[in-house]
Amino acid sequence: MKVAHFSETREFDPKVMKRFTIHDSEWFRIINFNLSAGLTFPVHSHDLDGQLSIQVMEGEGEYLGRDDSAIPAKAGDILVCDIREPHGVRATTDMRILVTIAPPL
Amino acid sequence: MKVAHFSETREFDPKVMKRFTIHDSEWFRIINFNLSAGLTFPVHSHDLDGQLSIQVMEGEGEYLGRDDSAIPAKAGDILVCDIREPHGVRATTDMRILVTIAPPL
Repeated sequence: MKVAHFSETREFDPKVMKRFTIHDSEWFRIINFNLSAGLTFPVHSHDLDGQLSIQVMEGEGEYLGRDDSAIPAKAGDILVCDIREPHGVRATTDMRILVTIAPPL
Repeated sequence: MKVAHFSETREFDPKVMKRFTIHDSEWFRIINFNLSAGLTFPVHSHDLDGQLSIQVMEGEGEYLGRDDSAIPAKAGDILVCDIREPHGVRATTDMRILVTIAPPL
């Protein structure tokens, strides 16, 4: 049993996305990304089985997908997609997200 | 790609914990539990490989474990434990938690 405190990784850089690994095991990985307003987590995918969730903890922006698709993303929203599906995030305001990947890459 | 809205399952019952499945696949399951102040999600475990996270989204209380152990739990805290480890939650205030289990039971 291990408790992480999400409040302790509330750091932003206006130029680059900040990344904090909250948990990593053979079962899943949890990563906190903090994006300053205007930053984009570029669309990407991996040719691997598995799924991931992208949970918006704070702020708002858009979930990005295949062919320039964009879906509104705000605090409380949880996207789930296959690791193989193109996915990304664009921040309109400062934005904190929590990504869970199973199995971890 | 599928987006769930955590704000849509903000329902409490003073007598029983409310449960909403946010996602379920062969990779992981995400469940939202809402506990009114005073309610307990009893300590339990399953004899299966895998891990789970218990994320406090709102409110506060305690993470419960083996031998009556209790760890403070407040919004932003994320507990990770093996599915085999005894785990539970006690709500001091109305409390919303998000549980991710991989692989799903």
